[in-house]
Amino acid sequence: MQRHFVQELEALKTNLIRMGSLAEQAVHDSIRAMIERDAELASGVIAKEGRINAFELENDDAVVDLLALQQPVASDLRFILSGLKINNDLERIGDHAVNIAESAISYADRPKLTIELALPRMGEIAETMLREAIDGFIHANPALARGVLRNDDIIDDLNRQTVGELVHVIRTDPEAVEQALDLVRVSRNLERIADLATNIAEEVIYVTEAHVVKHHLEEKAGPPSGRDR
Amino acid sequence: MQRHFVQELEALKTNLIRMGSLAEQAVHDSIRAMIERDAELASGVIAKEGRINAFELENDDAVVDLLALQQPVASDLRFILSGLKINNDLERIGDHAVNIAESAISYADRPKLTIELALPRMGEIAETMLREAIDGFIHANPALARGVLRNDDIIDDLNRQTVGELVHVIRTDPEAVEQALDLVRVSRNLERIADLATNIAEEVIYVTEAHVVKHHLEEKAGPPSGRDR
Repeated sequence: MQRHFVQELEALKTNLIRMGSLAEQAVHDSIRAMIERDAELASGVIAKEGRINAFELENDDAVVDLLALQQPVASDLRFILSGLKINNDLERIGDHAVNIAESAISYADRPKLTIELALPRMGEIAETMLREAIDGFIHANPALARGVLRNDDIIDDLNRQTVGELVHVIRTDPEAVEQALDLVRVSRNLERIADLATNIAEEVIYVTEAHVVKHHLEEKAGPPSGRDR
Repeated sequence: MQRHFVQELEALKTNLIRMGSLAEQAVHDSIRAMIERDAELASGVIAKEGRINAFELENDDAVVDLLALQQPVASDLRFILSGLKINNDLERIGDHAVNIAESAISYADRPKLTIELALPRMGEIAETMLREAIDGFIHANPALARGVLRNDDIIDDLNRQTVGELVHVIRTDPEAVEQALDLVRVSRNLERIADLATNIAEEVIYVTEAHVVKHHLEEKAGPPSGRDR
């Protein structure tokens, strides 16, 4: 029984790693499709979303089995519940990659904007964040995960800057509005992907250090009832 | 022990209901703030987000305690894990209400657009979806939850239509670009809120009927390994 449990736990971990790779690939391809105006590559991202979603259902089932049949406690339980959240976050990252791919297809069909934007850099940072969050999970390394948290502010700033520049484009060239809106959507989806990588990193820190970094210092209103973390 | 478990389970349910009410209120107020150009109301939504986030942490803890101390099986386990997902979805709905509130503050500060848009109707539908998803959860009523799923397509259509109309506004009046982008953001956030209400409704159906409606028929690629649901 004990050995069976360890094997199932390893299988869940392996599945999350594979799902993370698919999500990373989807983000990478969707951004490249947007930059290179490659509608075929973008269509590939959309076609492959089903694999990520299938992993999510598979992992949900694995968690239910682990909890129902094995009744784990303490650190195993914490790991399994974090796995459930990471599973959900990876599925959402897949959704955002699909949004970017849809915008890439729309953008590839229209005259290219000549403006130099931070989107490629945002894409690189978001990919790095996602990779390091997943590496942090694989190696139970909270230091890696903490680096992810720091990058989130950079992406937020670049998103604001990029949207501002696109608003200027629309003002000066109303004919470019569809392209500019496609790129606004890409920028906002990259910002959301970075948020989700941050969520994963927070789970990694939580599971390795049993410390909630989520909602940092924003809980000024205080929790609905007493707690001390 | 058994009685204690039942009480803790009821406490989790009550907490989710209270959190759902706060999320509903946040959505309602953020939309009203946008329509009535009421920056003060919008600021209230942002100020109250901390309460929703505090509930999320509280409920996460409650789930860990329930699983660790009580080791539930079968339908209780399913309910608790669905509660964990609904908890996460409600927190995200709070985030989207804050996004709308931010756009409402920005919009209130600029000349009003005279165009008649579907945003108030989208707001009403999204609120109804959220309320019925939560009612479906409270009363373990899958019929209510199925109604939510049907409304999601309506919101998707209205979002596409609204964004299209706003693109037209930007084309014909480049000076209105900031306002139009604020309203595009509101429309997309409403669409996301409707998606999350749909997630909650799917969980309600799952927990009451033990049937996965998520990812409906989109799993053409098939799951990564065999399963039969």
